[in-house]
Amino acid sequence: MINRLLMLLPAQLLALELTTASRPLPTRTCRHPCMVASAAPPAFDLATYMEEKRVLTEAALDASLKSSCKETEIIVESMRYSLMAGGKRVRPMLCFAATEMFGGSLEAATPTAVALEMIHTMSLIHDDLPAMDNDDFRRGKPTNHVLYGDDVAILAGDALLSTAFEHVAKETKGVPAERVVRVLAALGTSVGAVGLAGGQVMDLKCEGQGADAVDMETLTWIHTHKTAALLKAAVSCGAILAGATDEQVKQCEVYALKIGLAFQVADDILDVTASTEELGKTAGKDLDADKTTYPKLLGLDRSREVAQELVDEAKAALASYGDAAAPLNGLADYIINRSN
Amino acid sequence: MINRLLMLLPAQLLALELTTASRPLPTRTCRHPCMVASAAPPAFDLATYMEEKRVLTEAALDASLKSSCKETEIIVESMRYSLMAGGKRVRPMLCFAATEMFGGSLEAATPTAVALEMIHTMSLIHDDLPAMDNDDFRRGKPTNHVLYGDDVAILAGDALLSTAFEHVAKETKGVPAERVVRVLAALGTSVGAVGLAGGQVMDLKCEGQGADAVDMETLTWIHTHKTAALLKAAVSCGAILAGATDEQVKQCEVYALKIGLAFQVADDILDVTASTEELGKTAGKDLDADKTTYPKLLGLDRSREVAQELVDEAKAALASYGDAAAPLNGLADYIINRSN
Repeated sequence: MINRLLMLLPAQLLALELTTASRPLPTRTCRHPCMVASAAPPAFDLATYMEEKRVLTEAALDASLKSSCKETEIIVESMRYSLMAGGKRVRPMLCFAATEMFGGSLEAATPTAVALEMIHTMSLIHDDLPAMDNDDFRRGKPTNHVLYGDDVAILAGDALLSTAFEHVAKETKGVPAERVVRVLAALGTSVGAVGLAGGQVMDLKCEGQGADAVDMETLTWIHTHKTAALLKAAVSCGAILAGATDEQVKQCEVYALKIGLAFQVADDILDVTASTEELGKTAGKDLDADKTTYPKLLGLDRSREVAQELVDEAKAALASYGDAAAPLNGLADYIINRSN
Repeated sequence: MINRLLMLLPAQLLALELTTASRPLPTRTCRHPCMVASAAPPAFDLATYMEEKRVLTEAALDASLKSSCKETEIIVESMRYSLMAGGKRVRPMLCFAATEMFGGSLEAATPTAVALEMIHTMSLIHDDLPAMDNDDFRRGKPTNHVLYGDDVAILAGDALLSTAFEHVAKETKGVPAERVVRVLAALGTSVGAVGLAGGQVMDLKCEGQGADAVDMETLTWIHTHKTAALLKAAVSCGAILAGATDEQVKQCEVYALKIGLAFQVADDILDVTASTEELGKTAGKDLDADKTTYPKLLGLDRSREVAQELVDEAKAALASYGDAAAPLNGLADYIINRSN
């Protein structure tokens, strides 16, 4: 047992602590606080958990992509520029948290976590293009096409998207191949016509039509696909890799779709309330583009309530997992309380 | 045996004929030609083979992509517009021919054949964009962005690329999951930094530099990646699905890289010698763009010789397969003798 514990990564040890953290804290007063600390592990600390997963993700991303010859230097530099440009790494975190909830290993989920961030980065590079949102800044830095040109940016996005699938297929170890195939299918679905590309096309078509033309049902469809689909893939792939049952994967999908919508509601609120400096990208873009948003349809106060309701529903979908769901529950809270 | 024969597809029956076609035709004169025909099956007919595979491919492509709700109608229409716009379907044919050479089933290879064409279509849509080659016509029809706008064209390409992987992962039946994972890895590699996107970036960077700056080594690198990488994936995936050994897959890769280069040499020759009408796309583009091509580096006559040498080397890599390699050998000939 000790040998096995020594082989675990720090994050796995933390997960182990989480599963034993369900014991209630002693209520009697104690003169020796240090004894309490050793008897009951500390409550779940989201900030520590997120920082740990962020560090793990950054290292895995950095290792995932190197130029193998002089001819690929430009495209790999362009891919790495956007892939390594910071970001919250929410999708990898969701994948790790889901896999840990079912006792899966972080190592087995790491290639999928990397792939999720490659896909997300591709969507950002292509969204920022002059032919799309025409954004010059992202995360406070010049966007990919500003530095490398539209042509290279388009191709770097394509390469990131295909490398995501290649990486999962080649690097996932210690998991039955059937699960890897399911993960690749889920990742593929999350980008296609009923994924982020389909959501984006509807979003573009509705732009400038004003709140009258776009009702709540359409807005929900757009964001369920544009934003929530990839979060759904993140959580369900983590669960699949750990061997979750179909029923359990479905619970994860409910959670993910709810936080996906909450994520977008929060984004819409931030677009109105935060500054460009805080966001690291141009604020107030939705207003300029006459885009239908949750604040426009519901007002700011009701939008905040809706975001909270969605997070509550997300957590309810995972109620049966108890403290093992603490990281996913914490990430749900984070998604609507973040400042960028 | 008869029951099993009845269950085979026509193309499988043809393949069966091919494996028995090695017997030499009788040399003596015969008064009853019909008897000769029944004694020795007809020699391999490339045109029939290609038409049969083209029909199979078109049907599979048509079935692969439907809009499931009103919100996805535009993106699916845009994806289907380019996917179903004709084309030679060389990549699916190569995949089918390779899988048949190793006794694999056409049915098991069909999702991969579809994926290859989805990937190829994505690369055409993105290449034609104003930010890239800025082409208004493809196969004699308006290009995707001319009809749907640059933004939808970019997203339709992204969706086709991800759907390719999804389709293989979800629809491949009767093959061990390990092989499906290997196929998905090979498809991913063929698009990334050492695949068509990497080849394209190098091609863009060399454009306008003239023949002095781009030598034969660089030109070969560009086309090995821009063109040959996806052909290599087509042949090797067909082989992998049929259970070919690593050594056999390597022989297929040698064949594919040789015909991939031959394909590009032939393309360069056609760009000089064929009319826009024959090509279905703008002719003489390479000259206008001051692009380094095989004819520019070697002259037209030597380019034709090089194309033939490459095809001979491709066939030599498959010499040990005898008549079972007839379709792949025939496709190699076709690649340098086509008129568009």
